[in-house]
Amino acid sequence: MKNIKMNARLRQQLEFSLEIDKEKNIFRQTSLSGHGRKENDAEHAWHMAIMAYVLQEYANEPVDAARCMLMCLIHDIVEIDAGDTYAYDQTALQTQKEREDAAKERIFSLLPQDQKKLLTELFDEFEENQTPESRFAHAMDNLQPLLLNNSNEGGDWKEHGVTADKVYRRQTKTREGSEVLYEVTDQILKENIRKGNLPES
Amino acid sequence: MKNIKMNARLRQQLEFSLEIDKEKNIFRQTSLSGHGRKENDAEHAWHMAIMAYVLQEYANEPVDAARCMLMCLIHDIVEIDAGDTYAYDQTALQTQKEREDAAKERIFSLLPQDQKKLLTELFDEFEENQTPESRFAHAMDNLQPLLLNNSNEGGDWKEHGVTADKVYRRQTKTREGSEVLYEVTDQILKENIRKGNLPES
Repeated sequence: MKNIKMNARLRQQLEFSLEIDKEKNIFRQTSLSGHGRKENDAEHAWHMAIMAYVLQEYANEPVDAARCMLMCLIHDIVEIDAGDTYAYDQTALQTQKEREDAAKERIFSLLPQDQKKLLTELFDEFEENQTPESRFAHAMDNLQPLLLNNSNEGGDWKEHGVTADKVYRRQTKTREGSEVLYEVTDQILKENIRKGNLPES
Repeated sequence: MKNIKMNARLRQQLEFSLEIDKEKNIFRQTSLSGHGRKENDAEHAWHMAIMAYVLQEYANEPVDAARCMLMCLIHDIVEIDAGDTYAYDQTALQTQKEREDAAKERIFSLLPQDQKKLLTELFDEFEENQTPESRFAHAMDNLQPLLLNNSNEGGDWKEHGVTADKVYRRQTKTREGSEVLYEVTDQILKENIRKGNLPES
């Protein structure tokens, strides 16, 4: 867009808008329903944001749904540089923060300063997981792939040899965001253990 | 989820949440930046929603950004049944409304009645294009693929033999949503015509 005349602020905003397109190339370990291909971060974020809207009544504390949705939409943008870190990959988890901090700085710096600040704060709020919105967004981050994986008879757990204790450890965040959705999660996990889709240990 | 105990309302909401996963399989005619594969509706909606937030200051009239974002997120859900209708496919455009109306009824009916009403109204608001939010969402619906196509030297126009008069006709909606973004759009189109990426007629 270098030949297009516009002010610096708009140019920054459009360059950020084009840059985030790359999130569609970051693939996760979750398969789409119907035993489909792996999903990518942009699809995952879109799905989480709509679920946050539809399920907001189940948040443990009242949430600003709009803030929660925007948090869902941007929570994986750093993976454009840092890549997806699978929730059960212990080696990758050790370097995750460092990789994601550098990415956060680079990508949000494409924006004008005020918007860099806003989106960085929202990203950090998600990571710190101390507000009603961030806790509910984490519940969505867990429930969305669980719905898909359950619809696929636990195919993703089987592929990675994931055991129930690890899944339950991750799901404590779901409970912090929504007791109601944790109750459903617990039943879904128990049914998958019973069916042999998810080994207990 | 039939073996999982929960109330009817939550079951409907989770069934809707799982159903919309299918939107990730509806591919558009726009290629990702870097001459990538075609993008799908879920990715497109995610991208539009973030752009609506980042670019909201350029709406012709003040917009409720949250409403605009949710509108962007759901505006293509009907394509799960109706398929993507390419903006320049005249035959498909003739049957588009009928196909999309049936899809709207089926898919939003998965939700509890109150949420069906809310999302159907939001979907219709987008289609009718009479409010500040819907006009700005349409500007995003046009600008998002334009950014990608421009970054790919007009590859999508070339593939489909699309001419500038058709593109300009579509971009009247961008102008209704944002004069500022239309001004940039106009420059981008002129530059692509000059480069031979977009034949005038």
